[in-house]
Amino acid sequence: MTAKTVFSKIIDGEIPCHRIYEDEHVFAFLDVGPLASGHTLLIPKLPIERLEDVPEEVAAALGRALRMLGRAVITATGVRDYHVVQKNGSLAGQVVPHVHFHIIPKPSMKEGLGMRWEPGSLAQAEGGQLAERIRSALS
Amino acid sequence: MTAKTVFSKIIDGEIPCHRIYEDEHVFAFLDVGPLASGHTLLIPKLPIERLEDVPEEVAAALGRALRMLGRAVITATGVRDYHVVQKNGSLAGQVVPHVHFHIIPKPSMKEGLGMRWEPGSLAQAEGGQLAERIRSALS
Repeated sequence: MTAKTVFSKIIDGEIPCHRIYEDEHVFAFLDVGPLASGHTLLIPKLPIERLEDVPEEVAAALGRALRMLGRAVITATGVRDYHVVQKNGSLAGQVVPHVHFHIIPKPSMKEGLGMRWEPGSLAQAEGGQLAERIRSALS
Repeated sequence: MTAKTVFSKIIDGEIPCHRIYEDEHVFAFLDVGPLASGHTLLIPKLPIERLEDVPEEVAAALGRALRMLGRAVITATGVRDYHVVQKNGSLAGQVVPHVHFHIIPKPSMKEGLGMRWEPGSLAQAEGGQLAERIRSALS
C-alpha cells in the first residue's frame, strides 16, 4: 500500500482544511496556496492519481461538482470569471499524486492564473489521421 | 435569438471538424489551433456560455467524457501527461461563448500549455469566512 497523500489525510480529517463540499464521491476545500481569493480544490474521495483512471461514476460526480462550485465561488467572491484546471503528471506540474481540479477566480488580467498560449496549426491530413487514432483508442 | 457560435456550427456540420466523439450531451473534436499534437476540445451540445450554467446531467456527461478522452488521447499520442483547462469569461481568456474544455498533451516542459502559477497564502481567519460564504452559496 502506498503512503497516504496530503489529500487523503484532509478527507480523513487528519489534516485540517477549510471544507466547502462533500458527497459520496467528491470533496472540495480551499487551496492553501491560492492564486486568487476563492481558489478551490475539488478531489475524488478515492486516492487515484490521474483523471483517466477514476471510475466513470466518479468522473460524472466531478463534472456535477465543478458546475456547482463554479456558481458558488462566483456568488461568494463576486468575481464572475474563472479557470478550471487539472494537471496530470509531473510534466504538467502535478505535485500531489491524487486527482485535483482547481477552480480559480480571475479578478483581473494580472491576478489569478496566467497562461502561455501559443497555438500551432492543424494540417488537414495530420488532423484526419490523429482524430482517427483517438477515435480508435476510444473504442 | 443570438447568432450561432462556431461551435454550434461545427456540431451541426455547417463547419467541418476532425470529430472524435459524440453522445447525447457532448461533442469532441481536434482544436485547429493546437498547443500540442492531440489537443482536443470537449463541448456540450447545448449552446451555453459558462460552465456554471450547464444543466446537471450535461455537467456529469462532461466529466465522464473528460476521463474517457484523457485516456484515448494518451493512447493515440503516446504522451502520458496532459492538462485539462476550461475558461469562463473574457478575463479568463474565453473567446468562443460556448463552454469548452481543452485536453492538452504535455510532451515536454517547453511544449503544450505553460502556466504562471504564483500562489499566495490563505490566512486562517480569512479562509474560515471565505469557506463559509462559499458553503452558504451552495445551499
